[in-house]
Amino acid sequence: MSTKDNALSIFALGGLNEIGKNMYAIQYSDDIVIIDCGNKFPDESLLGIDLIIPDITYLLENKDKVRALIVTHGHEDHIGGIPYFLKKLNVPVYATRFTLGLIELKLQEHKLLRETELIEIDSNSSLNFEEISVNFFKVNHSIPDCLGIVFHTPEGTIVHTGDFKFDLTPVNNQYADIHKMAEIGRQGVLLLLSESTNAERPGFTPSERIVGEHVEEAFKKAERKIIISTFASNINRVQQVVDAARKTNRKLALLGRSMVNVVKVAMERGYLEVPDGMLIEPHEINEMPPEKVTILCTGSQGEPLAALSRLSTANYRGVDILPEDTVILAAGPIPGNERNVSRIIDNLFSLGAKVIYGTGSSTGMHVSGHGYQEDLKLMLTLMKPKYFIPIHGEFRMLHHHRLLAETVGVERENTFIMNNGDVVDIENAIARQTQKIPTGNTYVDGVGVGDVGDIVLRDRKQLSEDGMLVIILTLSKTEGKLVSRPDTITRGFVYARDSEELLKNVNRLVTNTVNDLRGGTKNEWNVIKHSIKKSVGQYLYTHTKRKPMILPIIIET
Amino acid sequence: MSTKDNALSIFALGGLNEIGKNMYAIQYSDDIVIIDCGNKFPDESLLGIDLIIPDITYLLENKDKVRALIVTHGHEDHIGGIPYFLKKLNVPVYATRFTLGLIELKLQEHKLLRETELIEIDSNSSLNFEEISVNFFKVNHSIPDCLGIVFHTPEGTIVHTGDFKFDLTPVNNQYADIHKMAEIGRQGVLLLLSESTNAERPGFTPSERIVGEHVEEAFKKAERKIIISTFASNINRVQQVVDAARKTNRKLALLGRSMVNVVKVAMERGYLEVPDGMLIEPHEINEMPPEKVTILCTGSQGEPLAALSRLSTANYRGVDILPEDTVILAAGPIPGNERNVSRIIDNLFSLGAKVIYGTGSSTGMHVSGHGYQEDLKLMLTLMKPKYFIPIHGEFRMLHHHRLLAETVGVERENTFIMNNGDVVDIENAIARQTQKIPTGNTYVDGVGVGDVGDIVLRDRKQLSEDGMLVIILTLSKTEGKLVSRPDTITRGFVYARDSEELLKNVNRLVTNTVNDLRGGTKNEWNVIKHSIKKSVGQYLYTHTKRKPMILPIIIET
Repeated sequence: MSTKDNALSIFALGGLNEIGKNMYAIQYSDDIVIIDCGNKFPDESLLGIDLIIPDITYLLENKDKVRALIVTHGHEDHIGGIPYFLKKLNVPVYATRFTLGLIELKLQEHKLLRETELIEIDSNSSLNFEEISVNFFKVNHSIPDCLGIVFHTPEGTIVHTGDFKFDLTPVNNQYADIHKMAEIGRQGVLLLLSESTNAERPGFTPSERIVGEHVEEAFKKAERKIIISTFASNINRVQQVVDAARKTNRKLALLGRSMVNVVKVAMERGYLEVPDGMLIEPHEINEMPPEKVTILCTGSQGEPLAALSRLSTANYRGVDILPEDTVILAAGPIPGNERNVSRIIDNLFSLGAKVIYGTGSSTGMHVSGHGYQEDLKLMLTLMKPKYFIPIHGEFRMLHHHRLLAETVGVERENTFIMNNGDVVDIENAIARQTQKIPTGNTYVDGVGVGDVGDIVLRDRKQLSEDGMLVIILTLSKTEGKLVSRPDTITRGFVYARDSEELLKNVNRLVTNTVNDLRGGTKNEWNVIKHSIKKSVGQYLYTHTKRKPMILPIIIET
Repeated sequence: MSTKDNALSIFALGGLNEIGKNMYAIQYSDDIVIIDCGNKFPDESLLGIDLIIPDITYLLENKDKVRALIVTHGHEDHIGGIPYFLKKLNVPVYATRFTLGLIELKLQEHKLLRETELIEIDSNSSLNFEEISVNFFKVNHSIPDCLGIVFHTPEGTIVHTGDFKFDLTPVNNQYADIHKMAEIGRQGVLLLLSESTNAERPGFTPSERIVGEHVEEAFKKAERKIIISTFASNINRVQQVVDAARKTNRKLALLGRSMVNVVKVAMERGYLEVPDGMLIEPHEINEMPPEKVTILCTGSQGEPLAALSRLSTANYRGVDILPEDTVILAAGPIPGNERNVSRIIDNLFSLGAKVIYGTGSSTGMHVSGHGYQEDLKLMLTLMKPKYFIPIHGEFRMLHHHRLLAETVGVERENTFIMNNGDVVDIENAIARQTQKIPTGNTYVDGVGVGDVGDIVLRDRKQLSEDGMLVIILTLSKTEGKLVSRPDTITRGFVYARDSEELLKNVNRLVTNTVNDLRGGTKNEWNVIKHSIKKSVGQYLYTHTKRKPMILPIIIET
């Protein structure tokens, strides 16, 4: 499949719902430019799956046209798929200095650093491909060094916002290029792709700076150790933790691999300033008076293996949370993580800690990095696009973003809600949702990419709910008769020692089933297996209301 | 184990966290009275488990002393364990008229109705056992006919609140017995057990009546069909839906088994008034003008098989949600259900429906049935207990409830936070947390109660994440040599057709492993099995980063 010459196409490769997240592409004639390549963490129904990444069949089929992967910012759902993508399609990767630092950590892990062409850009860069040229503008978000992208094509200008909010008092004075955005809009935008995460929330996002104020207040009140957990990548928040530690004369220890790695990248590249001598090693924590220590750690989402979870169950070697220590969760739970976070809070309370937590911004310890309705309307107003594609979010968020766009003057029929695999073509300034490209889930399980499909998952589901039963039959080759009694092995079904009677009955039933088969079918293994599955399955369901996987194994002797 | 004569003991049999929920018991000498017998729905880590119920080992060991099971109200987490409990310990069950109706539905399903002694009580009843006599008071909650319980013992008075809020303008004029509570407190309460669900929320719970106002407003605005979903047991909310339908001249259809059953019980027993001719059958929906129809259905928690979920994916036979229909979620998502609920909302939007939803009380379509901090403080103030046990909730809620009790005058050291299995003894008016009784999780899987334990669950977990590999070896009895090539069957591990090479290598490795074993060990099956598990396990982990269950099966011939 390919698009027409001299036509502009926008591809949704990943963005909605369960699909490997956040990957769009723009094509004009023989130029394809990709925006972001994220991953998504699977929900509990995808048993054993580690990651979901976008399906890139279309890109592989049009390999020669792909000019670049441009990355808006360094969050997992925008960079997590890159190593898997590059293994299949090695193209130059463009990103800002900080984003590249995070991408490099990933490539190192996958041993891809040497063979990848990484090109540093900033908001003043411009890139020129054959038919598409590209500029950038700075946006605010919950990670430093984020870009929006402007694509100039023969058909007109396309703007992709990346993830953004408007923070008019940003930490570290990293202001968004609001005047540049206005100028882009003034010159005319054919199509805007804008993020939708908070399209359901009324109002304007609070500034990251208010988190700093609350952190400082809590630090001043704390009388013993402070343990504070947030997203490692939210370096502006980390900076505010550092500032609060400085003002209250506390040292700072970092716990958790990603916290250590990301802070290192941020310090080396000039995004984070930590006073000399403030950082201490974990083993030094116990040597200092508790009121002189802050611990900054991973695990704010309740991840079972992260530092905070291990601290909360007294399982972190050498570091203990003691009564009257203060624990601050400086991050709201991402939907789906609520239970894990609650469990940790419970454990922290039972250790006697003072715990500061709460959903969303109720404690002032978290603000969103995604623009609320008024932020989104401001972006739409600045860009004044003819066409609009709400991106990044679940269907209801895209739906609400469409309604917002209508209120600021985008015609309803000029908004397109794209599912994964959808394509919007623009020709002679007329946009239409036309073809579909191949799409689907690409699952990553261990080192396997795409080798676990629906059959394997269906088996895992059955095994996980009711376990299995292996039945071994030894049949004589000549007569097809049972040579010895059948043997049964179960796992995950019932505790075998307590269920001897049940399993004896299964063996008896198997014997009868085989003996009852008519002569002609005796040697047909499929018939035997099918009959056993059916009779044993029915017997077990009647007696246990469970449906274990039944695996008859026939040995001929 | 048993308690001393002439001592008063309070037992926590189920209440905290993952344990089968909400069961307490009070013992004085030879009298044991049980309060509630709930179940809990397992989280995703308990693979295949249907329910968790309390461990009643202690009660079984003291069978002869158990006088009664008294039920405070009809929610699942207070009645769901009753059938399993009665099968092991058949005691009289005391509950109000509406609660009994719901218990009877359960007993019918389990074919226990005939052999169970059910005794109807109301807030004026009094029960007399040998050493304990019992009175009641009415409380408000999100289900009709709820009781608090007063136990008079030789040692003093104990009050158990059940679940409650103070609703000063209750629907159906079911006022709480606030004067009676004051009188109980005036006479002196030795120990209060009070529920803690909303101990983290400041303020006073809003009245159920405000939901009615919002429902009515939405009904007046709706121009086509209305689909409204709420908890079937919240009959006061159902009444307000009925009232709104009456005021806007709509008929009412009920979808979902529990909605139909519970509404029937409520109507028969006088807790719900539905005008004659208002109820229609589902098949009549399409025969009526859409602006004349309301559908009241189950599934507000996103349960995948409930009516709302099926409607949202256009999978409900004979009933369709069409563009411009109004769908109201008149219930907040219980923690853990957010993702499933979001998915349904997405699907409803993509059908073109107008969806009214939101967390908590943001839309006015839901209020909590559990008292907030001021409600809890009011109960504590009315009862003026010497001792206090916060019940029903996770640890952080109990902790906050304790802090609240302190603010209204309960001494800190007089509050006990009980884990499951904990016992508080009171002797000569002195309370102490002393012994522990046996406790644990009793899992229900299909018809099996307690036959799935940690080993079975561990196997299910391994099977669910990486599947399994059965390796069949045929060995000669005499020499212990392989008679033929090993055979491998996999399920849930890799898609076998795509992994022929991998599985061939496994068979080769198995052959080598068996051949390499020293002569003396050839015939020791355990050694052979162990060697195969080890070598194949290492090989597979290196090549796939997965750890499937490996089951070697040896056939001797």
